[in-house]
Amino acid sequence: MAPHDDGIEVAEETMVAEAEKRPIVTIVIVIAMQTEALPLVNKFKLSENHDPVFPKGVPWVRYHGIYKDLNINIIWPGKDSVLGVDCVGTVPASLVTYASIQALQPDLIINAGTAGGFKAKGACIGDVFVACDVAFHDRRIPIPVFDLYGICARRTFSTPNMLKELKLKVGKLSTGDSLDMSPHDEASITANDATLKDMEGAAVAYVADLLSVPAIFIKAVTDIVDDDKPTAEEFLQNLVAVTAALDQAVTQVVDFISGKCISEL
Amino acid sequence: MAPHDDGIEVAEETMVAEAEKRPIVTIVIVIAMQTEALPLVNKFKLSENHDPVFPKGVPWVRYHGIYKDLNINIIWPGKDSVLGVDCVGTVPASLVTYASIQALQPDLIINAGTAGGFKAKGACIGDVFVACDVAFHDRRIPIPVFDLYGICARRTFSTPNMLKELKLKVGKLSTGDSLDMSPHDEASITANDATLKDMEGAAVAYVADLLSVPAIFIKAVTDIVDDDKPTAEEFLQNLVAVTAALDQAVTQVVDFISGKCISEL
Repeated sequence: MAPHDDGIEVAEETMVAEAEKRPIVTIVIVIAMQTEALPLVNKFKLSENHDPVFPKGVPWVRYHGIYKDLNINIIWPGKDSVLGVDCVGTVPASLVTYASIQALQPDLIINAGTAGGFKAKGACIGDVFVACDVAFHDRRIPIPVFDLYGICARRTFSTPNMLKELKLKVGKLSTGDSLDMSPHDEASITANDATLKDMEGAAVAYVADLLSVPAIFIKAVTDIVDDDKPTAEEFLQNLVAVTAALDQAVTQVVDFISGKCISEL
Repeated sequence: MAPHDDGIEVAEETMVAEAEKRPIVTIVIVIAMQTEALPLVNKFKLSENHDPVFPKGVPWVRYHGIYKDLNINIIWPGKDSVLGVDCVGTVPASLVTYASIQALQPDLIINAGTAGGFKAKGACIGDVFVACDVAFHDRRIPIPVFDLYGICARRTFSTPNMLKELKLKVGKLSTGDSLDMSPHDEASITANDATLKDMEGAAVAYVADLLSVPAIFIKAVTDIVDDDKPTAEEFLQNLVAVTAALDQAVTQVVDFISGKCISEL
């Protein structure tokens, strides 16, 4: 890792500042489940794209189209080739985020999906939140500094104008690869001060930050984690109905973004 | 996901069979920690490569050189740009495996590193194992079929001749993003019948399988998980010494591979 040359660094900062003043053209929306993705694919009149933007053999699906002045790409990690279920979780989410940024050079990433919510933090079934912070809750590495790396807490890209105009709820998001919540997970989620629990957000944030692409996280609550109902049952019962609320919020966000530049969000 | 055309499928199978009969030329060795990587970098006389095979901004490091008749690339995910610690765990491991396969088109992946071992399954400090199976132990999704997807158990690429000649120990490997082991992790590791516990293997296996590249997993035991000593302390105490054993085993494997084709391993 060579040290930065100051001249190059200043030039890079200028380029970033200029990019933030250009209208947003290309958006990548990362969605983990087909049930969550399809209503938005229909809403934006996107079609499945068979261009080889992804390598041969991967199940990743790109839905693409023009909506208003935006080049919209919904990226779904597809179904596991052996088991036939959606490729949920941090590994496929990080891979498709990386590959989509490399192939499509988006101005903005949106990670949209369902999540568990904590009623103690004010979440109700069907609520849609924008995540102000993301962190992991299942990467415990009890060695100094590695512990912080594991949690990987970070503020998300700031969108004060969008939040004000759309009146979306705001909360912290904690990510892990399990749908259930073990006592160790619960302790970490509490330490992360999270209102929401999902299986992809912090991984998408990690990759977007790595490649310097601003990212927004829109999460709709399918199940209340801190009640007595089993998560899996509640999640499956509410998935379709809550997806409609998610669909509406993502459309509002995309409509708000249309015609704006990054620095106006 | 369009159905396969039978003619294309047969042609693909023929190509794979032919590739397995060509001598192995390019190897990618994925190693999560610098302390594990550097002895091998020196052993194979590799040098840090500043060619832009990876995108700008990522901390990933490629050490490259020719050793015997092999084009060897050690890929280390580098240090976290904010915290300065090695980028361990499944997300960086899956990203560098993906990016390395895309950039370098290797004939073979080797994931080498340290691991925890279970004395109840015959592991001792300093033992080096080849993993015959990999699975995840921290992706609990209690919905039918999704549960299997989370565990993602798979046999690794079979190397009967290598195992016979090098007399390496063989065991099952279970992967998770925590260095410690919660009771939920322990139950899953037991269900996975694992001798070894690491933080990258199953993620590297997932990506290698996705892109149809054979992968070998070589893991050296730095700490005994099922004893009374704290994992982090034991891991740090043994890291350097055990890395020497890992170094020797990887060299033996690479020497064995030299001049052979995939189907001869």
